[in-house]
Amino acid sequence: MAQPLPVSPLASPLPDLGTVPGVRLGAVAAGIRYKGRTDLVVAEFDAGTTVAGVFTQSKCPGAPVDWCRAALKGGVARALVVNAGNANVFTGRAGIATCEKTAEVEAHLAGCVPSEVFLASTGVIGEVLPAERITAALPALHAALTEDGWEAAARGIMTTDTFPKAAVRKTEIGGVPVTIQGIAKGSGMIAPDMATMLSFVATDAKLPSAVLQSLLSKGVVTSFNAITVDSDTSTSDMVLLFATGRADNPAVASADDTALSAFRAALDSLLLELALMVVRDGEGASKQIRINVTGAVSDTSARTVARAIADSPLVKTAVAGEDANWGRVVMAVGKCGEPADRDLLTVAIGGVTIAREGTVVEGYDETPVVAHMKGREIEIDVDLGLGEGHATMWSCDLTHGYIDINGSYRS
Amino acid sequence: MAQPLPVSPLASPLPDLGTVPGVRLGAVAAGIRYKGRTDLVVAEFDAGTTVAGVFTQSKCPGAPVDWCRAALKGGVARALVVNAGNANVFTGRAGIATCEKTAEVEAHLAGCVPSEVFLASTGVIGEVLPAERITAALPALHAALTEDGWEAAARGIMTTDTFPKAAVRKTEIGGVPVTIQGIAKGSGMIAPDMATMLSFVATDAKLPSAVLQSLLSKGVVTSFNAITVDSDTSTSDMVLLFATGRADNPAVASADDTALSAFRAALDSLLLELALMVVRDGEGASKQIRINVTGAVSDTSARTVARAIADSPLVKTAVAGEDANWGRVVMAVGKCGEPADRDLLTVAIGGVTIAREGTVVEGYDETPVVAHMKGREIEIDVDLGLGEGHATMWSCDLTHGYIDINGSYRS
Repeated sequence: MAQPLPVSPLASPLPDLGTVPGVRLGAVAAGIRYKGRTDLVVAEFDAGTTVAGVFTQSKCPGAPVDWCRAALKGGVARALVVNAGNANVFTGRAGIATCEKTAEVEAHLAGCVPSEVFLASTGVIGEVLPAERITAALPALHAALTEDGWEAAARGIMTTDTFPKAAVRKTEIGGVPVTIQGIAKGSGMIAPDMATMLSFVATDAKLPSAVLQSLLSKGVVTSFNAITVDSDTSTSDMVLLFATGRADNPAVASADDTALSAFRAALDSLLLELALMVVRDGEGASKQIRINVTGAVSDTSARTVARAIADSPLVKTAVAGEDANWGRVVMAVGKCGEPADRDLLTVAIGGVTIAREGTVVEGYDETPVVAHMKGREIEIDVDLGLGEGHATMWSCDLTHGYIDINGSYRS
Repeated sequence: MAQPLPVSPLASPLPDLGTVPGVRLGAVAAGIRYKGRTDLVVAEFDAGTTVAGVFTQSKCPGAPVDWCRAALKGGVARALVVNAGNANVFTGRAGIATCEKTAEVEAHLAGCVPSEVFLASTGVIGEVLPAERITAALPALHAALTEDGWEAAARGIMTTDTFPKAAVRKTEIGGVPVTIQGIAKGSGMIAPDMATMLSFVATDAKLPSAVLQSLLSKGVVTSFNAITVDSDTSTSDMVLLFATGRADNPAVASADDTALSAFRAALDSLLLELALMVVRDGEGASKQIRINVTGAVSDTSARTVARAIADSPLVKTAVAGEDANWGRVVMAVGKCGEPADRDLLTVAIGGVTIAREGTVVEGYDETPVVAHMKGREIEIDVDLGLGEGHATMWSCDLTHGYIDINGSYRS
């Protein structure tokens, strides 16, 4: 962008970031696309680090997604290389070659094999990502990695993000203290299913990769897979979770082990915090929207209904206009094809029931709802009155800012 | 709206409208919502008029949609009453009562039974539509109906439309000249499937209702069901086709009768013309987009891919910004879940192939594509390279105008 974007009114401050023993990281300006800012991030992990990942469901994924899917089969990671500004998507053989060259150079520096190097790219689609700009910058970046590099990493992976995103949790496994710390980037082209942006989370817990994968796969369902900014699923999205094992907690063989209860809750809450930061930095967003659907015939059905509301341009523009236009919520429920009975439907906004059993409630007073709509966090509750299925989805409003940003992204 | 919207830059002039023997129509200002404009339209048909209809697939349809679905079972029509400004949706028992009262009064005037009266409403959702404003206006309107009332009807059904929409065809059945003439309204909340707005078409052809229904159901597939403005399916949409039989053409027993070839082609072309007018009046639209998908595993699959591109906010904002951002087209292909192979994909814009076999074509010169993007009619062609399935979908760009209109609709 020619002009830096104004910071989202929903931005949250960067938390106090600590270190994760076994992780060293940093960022540098490699001149891939942007001028005067960092755009290349490296993290290196101690030997023995396990890894889990979830990826975009796009049928046209970027070369780095293919690379990581293959690398993940080994279950171990020693390094991560991320660039911003160019997604290395739809770049054919050149894109694959860039992955291979990048992994080879980084593997040499980190003292591992290329398949232990994970790669991620974010930015414009369809332009060749020059490997040499990355590989030329890697040696100096490798030499400068530190355990304190988390903020630099959070800033270095940003594209149209207006604030850096990070979260941290302190928890325990079997009485042994462990840390979980993660960063994320994402602002547009955000939709389930899948990971919906880039996020990298590390812990010093000692966990087998299969356990890690189970925890991550479950954790994204109610976090990164429950957010949408614009219904457009990226070609590049991933969440990677690294466990260095430095905490030396008691061995855990299954994700269902009760020793993991606190860890699982902490991880889930961290993933949700990061995912909500992405919504709150949704391109042009001025309000966060939480959609709660209950009474559906199943959780899957509730999810589809919630997503139809969350993705509806008419609902999102109504929220932008601070208009409690519940009729558009009814429209979105009706359009998505899931079982719904107009005459059993209840709609509430800001905790105030507006419509019940197919019509507006008698004596409906819009005053408190109008006040709610002026706030930053809008709550829409829909009960379908059919069963026990429920789901929650988060979205943001659709404003002139979205048009400004996306009508001129490449220029 | 407080201020009248500027007329769409894609507007087409109203054609020279003639009459359809057996149809008398007119419009009046009933004060339902708007001030200083007509908002109530009535058409009456000669005895013996047959009717066909297609309706929104919404699970939360308006009371008039329920009414028309039931009325359609009789296959005959004597009157149509349409109001603009209030959709009579999610209005519970009051909404049903309004339909009953309106049909009763109109049936009395037209000399028929209520089930031969068709009803349509368009406008805001969730507010009770006062039957008395309609029924009070009906007698004077009935008295003033004329065969020349088509333009008045086209104007009287507008909501956020910026220009009236009508089309006419002269054709023949078995050598007997027949006319087909129709009007439409629609601008936002437009998406397949279903009829996606209001359109009323009449012909003086003599055709059984079953034949009429077959012709209409097939005709909407490539017209009203192939357009999208904002992916939001309305609760109120319908297309009704009336045949007065005044032309006295030879009897036709099947929609596949070769005697109907010219009529079918004329009807299909009229439906497409009306549907494209809706796209060209898409809220805030500055450019029409035609998406052509070929090489899919089936026509259904091609349709889903075409719709994913047509609905993508990122594709639509790129077109608004005159940016030939084909990477977003790839993203949209990838996100929709249909079979697609990144490395077989071909993307062309404005007839210029930009990407082939998973990457940009060698020596791609953006100059002619940049010129194409400055035009009013944007053409995107995608070949999936997998099979013989193909589909065409029409959309429009996503601009600041859409936000302006929909962030303040109710105010």
